[in-house]
Amino acid sequence: MDFDRYDRIRPIRWQGDRLSLLDQRRLPFTVEMVDCTDSDAVARAIHDLVVRGAPAIGIAAAWGAVLAGQGVQAADGAEALVRLGPALDRLKAARPTAVNLMWALARVRRALAAAGSDWLAVLSAEAIAIETEDLAANRYMGALGAALIAPGSGVLTHCNTGSLATAGFGTALGVIRAGVAEGRIERVYASETRPWLQGARLTVWELLQDGIPATLIGDGAAAHLMKTGAVQWVIVGADRICANGDTANKIGTYSHAIAARHHGLKVMVVAPSSTVDMDTARGEDIEIEMRDPAELLSVAGTRTVADGVEAWNPVFDVTPAGLIDAIVTERGVVTAPDAARMAAVFGAKIPG
Amino acid sequence: MDFDRYDRIRPIRWQGDRLSLLDQRRLPFTVEMVDCTDSDAVARAIHDLVVRGAPAIGIAAAWGAVLAGQGVQAADGAEALVRLGPALDRLKAARPTAVNLMWALARVRRALAAAGSDWLAVLSAEAIAIETEDLAANRYMGALGAALIAPGSGVLTHCNTGSLATAGFGTALGVIRAGVAEGRIERVYASETRPWLQGARLTVWELLQDGIPATLIGDGAAAHLMKTGAVQWVIVGADRICANGDTANKIGTYSHAIAARHHGLKVMVVAPSSTVDMDTARGEDIEIEMRDPAELLSVAGTRTVADGVEAWNPVFDVTPAGLIDAIVTERGVVTAPDAARMAAVFGAKIPG
Repeated sequence: MDFDRYDRIRPIRWQGDRLSLLDQRRLPFTVEMVDCTDSDAVARAIHDLVVRGAPAIGIAAAWGAVLAGQGVQAADGAEALVRLGPALDRLKAARPTAVNLMWALARVRRALAAAGSDWLAVLSAEAIAIETEDLAANRYMGALGAALIAPGSGVLTHCNTGSLATAGFGTALGVIRAGVAEGRIERVYASETRPWLQGARLTVWELLQDGIPATLIGDGAAAHLMKTGAVQWVIVGADRICANGDTANKIGTYSHAIAARHHGLKVMVVAPSSTVDMDTARGEDIEIEMRDPAELLSVAGTRTVADGVEAWNPVFDVTPAGLIDAIVTERGVVTAPDAARMAAVFGAKIPG
Repeated sequence: MDFDRYDRIRPIRWQGDRLSLLDQRRLPFTVEMVDCTDSDAVARAIHDLVVRGAPAIGIAAAWGAVLAGQGVQAADGAEALVRLGPALDRLKAARPTAVNLMWALARVRRALAAAGSDWLAVLSAEAIAIETEDLAANRYMGALGAALIAPGSGVLTHCNTGSLATAGFGTALGVIRAGVAEGRIERVYASETRPWLQGARLTVWELLQDGIPATLIGDGAAAHLMKTGAVQWVIVGADRICANGDTANKIGTYSHAIAARHHGLKVMVVAPSSTVDMDTARGEDIEIEMRDPAELLSVAGTRTVADGVEAWNPVFDVTPAGLIDAIVTERGVVTAPDAARMAAVFGAKIPG
């Protein structure tokens, strides 16, 4: 299938002596690359949300390590690791809660520690591997997930899980791209995703760039949309997937999943296996991050709510496995997920 | 119960020679009354959304008719009706789809047609009656609905159905005010209600004015809120209630009702009996009004979405009677509504 046709956006471009990042703060109105010529500039770009999305942050950090290495003299990888330490620490501190950032920098450190005098080439190769593995995993997940979708379908997605959040192609949006390329998906509905409006600002822009028929809806219109028969699948990403299949994702996902079940529609979660946390037994064990209520008191910088009003602003909600029809990772598809089916793919956690 | 304590907002104030309207376009940041000294100014205020909410529009139009009458000489009501005709037509044209506006002006015309030389006093009495009946009905519905709510409850509401939309007290917000006054409701959650943000701009402002503990949430956070156990009832208004109890209301209501059922919570619809349309058999017979997609492409005047993006913007959705636990009107409460229970209160439609 011609996946390339629907995959033209690259938020991260390595230029040999600098890293160009698509400035996601300015989308969808200004499409502009920010050039980072040293690792601290990459750290600032991560901190300032020029680049966002867990996989994309990890890839950018790996290239930040390469930029740091280009300015360093060292006899071997171990010496380079010592000299690069402070720069790597500053990259790590740029988004201290981003799991993929830690994971990517740990890969970089391991590669460096084992490298000889060609450590800079090893470092570059590791960054290339992190980036190309992500894109390949997304395309593979796309093919796996699209195979579940009947021709002529409409789908609903939430937040942004696309090329912008990854090396390219995306996770849930990757399945959608593959489904469109294979003629299975005719139209994509994207919910705007308050309070940050990632659906409105990013997802429909992405789909428009790739010529995919897309329609924006309000978050509260999803159930009514389902009743009209326009969609057959809800396809979303994941922040964390528990050992029993319960899935934490952007606030609003749970509401879509309940409405999908009510209408007899299906729900697919698409995420790299690094998102699966077999050490967390179930959704109840996840602490939901609460963000500043102020995010609900303004929209796109304009205050909309009276002073003194309280707001409740959870970032994520948990969709129980019982409402999920398929979890798609690059290690395979888990249908009707539960603890046993998850363990069969991801390995059982050893008790105690 | 001390309902007055929680009922201090009046969007419409008759001043004897002018009508003062709370300018709802400027809420919540500026609390300012607009004075209308003639009926055309009232028509403009209705058209320009200075006053909104079906009952409030009807009341404002009745006072507009009084202002028109104050400038007219006529021997009796019939003559006054002829002379006032053009002004009444202009009031009616201010919001041509507003059912309550037509209803209020029809009442005014009937009163005038039957009046003698004291027609101006009759006209004023009719406006007073329309306004005071609305307030009394809201307080009565408030008492009826609140009686269904167990002490210590939390409730979720959607859009604005409050004092701002009525003579005072509100419909769904009237039940909430009564529930707070009676110590049954401890906290009110209001969903922001995209695209117009009536929940964020108006409802939480109203509740704050009356000292009612209120928390704003995103529309997509409602299901997660329900899972936490914070709310026991979803309480909403209605645009139209069908003969079988199916209820059209602001987009997002249906999603809340599905999530409430999923969590074993209850749903209450509160609306004056003029909202019940026994000529419409069921929800499928309601044509859902679609509004300009542009409303989803900007928020509070700031464009948030790329050019060329399509959006789907239904104003209402339909919650089937099977998801509604109680319909509260001033003619009584219909629990577990269906066609037979609705007919028992509102009269069966005669077939053919």
